[in-house]
Amino acid sequence: MLTASDIESQKRLAALAAVDLVENGDLVGLGTGSTARYFVEELGARLAAGRVTGVRCVATSLATERLAGVTGLPLVALPASGVDLAVDGMDEVDDGLRAIKGLGGALTREKIVAAAARRFVLIGDAGKRVDQLGERTPLPVEVLGFGRERTARLLEDLGLEPTLRVQSGKEFLTDNGNPVLDCRVRLPADLEELADRIDRLPGVVDHGLFLHHADLAFLASFGGMEELRRPE
Amino acid sequence: MLTASDIESQKRLAALAAVDLVENGDLVGLGTGSTARYFVEELGARLAAGRVTGVRCVATSLATERLAGVTGLPLVALPASGVDLAVDGMDEVDDGLRAIKGLGGALTREKIVAAAARRFVLIGDAGKRVDQLGERTPLPVEVLGFGRERTARLLEDLGLEPTLRVQSGKEFLTDNGNPVLDCRVRLPADLEELADRIDRLPGVVDHGLFLHHADLAFLASFGGMEELRRPE
Repeated sequence: MLTASDIESQKRLAALAAVDLVENGDLVGLGTGSTARYFVEELGARLAAGRVTGVRCVATSLATERLAGVTGLPLVALPASGVDLAVDGMDEVDDGLRAIKGLGGALTREKIVAAAARRFVLIGDAGKRVDQLGERTPLPVEVLGFGRERTARLLEDLGLEPTLRVQSGKEFLTDNGNPVLDCRVRLPADLEELADRIDRLPGVVDHGLFLHHADLAFLASFGGMEELRRPE
Repeated sequence: MLTASDIESQKRLAALAAVDLVENGDLVGLGTGSTARYFVEELGARLAAGRVTGVRCVATSLATERLAGVTGLPLVALPASGVDLAVDGMDEVDDGLRAIKGLGGALTREKIVAAAARRFVLIGDAGKRVDQLGERTPLPVEVLGFGRERTARLLEDLGLEPTLRVQSGKEFLTDNGNPVLDCRVRLPADLEELADRIDRLPGVVDHGLFLHHADLAFLASFGGMEELRRPE
């Protein structure tokens, strides 16, 4: 039986494996959430110790911006040319390196940076691995506040079951100022088709399906580190 | 040679034709811009005069919200069930009832409401009619401020030529708080394919291509009123 502290150790191990990929002078996309946090802290420590040099970073949330500031990582705005490497956690990942992200609420900025990365690496404990995406976590969809009820109906029409995310008794808002609908997915589902149809809905900013973004995933467990690679 | 005042008369005539479609008790989506303004004013006048009753409206912008308030039209939030009728202007329309909208900056809310309308009607002067969409006006794309430079690059990769919209010397922001990239389209272009690819870009909120929304267009000219209908 895994304790919470075991899981934290695993998250940290996966993060350390990803830090090893950072090369001197890299522009690095920093994810958001409890696993990405270990990556940011370790990268900051290595930069401070001179074990890696000339690294600059792009943060995917205001929370990560603050953390990077504390950690001493220099931040820049995402340039047109993208980043060399982006590293982020996930809520679920399958064997095809497809992931659901966004329980932390930073999904849209995370996707912008992931899509802009020459290499996008997922990190997490092995418990995040699933047979079918959506089997445990809902799919987060960032929507505009305007027309939110209507957009929820359109998501229902796609077979999803949306619930408005609430935090501390109030409507949760992303760093972009938008609400999130957490959508239960009825399985089995054609995720490619689903992603496509959600992308086309007016009122949707973005969603947590990252189907073609990851190149590599580090999943840590008691048995050791597993690396998943995108099928060639 | 058409004067500015001729064009205003034509816009108003097209708006009046659309007001005739409003039935008692309808929930009506109100567009944004100089042509939609005539529609809002006339609908308000008819409601005040009792020529139409029980009408409620959904506004597609803060400007239209204010105008509807002044005009005495009761406003509601867009309900899940949509609206009966939505009426809006356009920047360009072709013979297939496909339109470019968004020079006024309200494109995303306009598209949410247009897509939620049982009947969506375009109104304008006949000068808005073009052989090929994009031949005169750029395609507006609402994007997130985060990663804006990168998103512009992705739009360039689709063959577009984006320019950040500036107003009074400052970055223009939509009612949703986002910047707009006005994109020149290289013609000829496969607009269906283009709309699809823009929809999938992370960082894009929505774009001004309304390819399958309009059911009817009223185009006013000296020669009279032309009605374009969606091919069956």
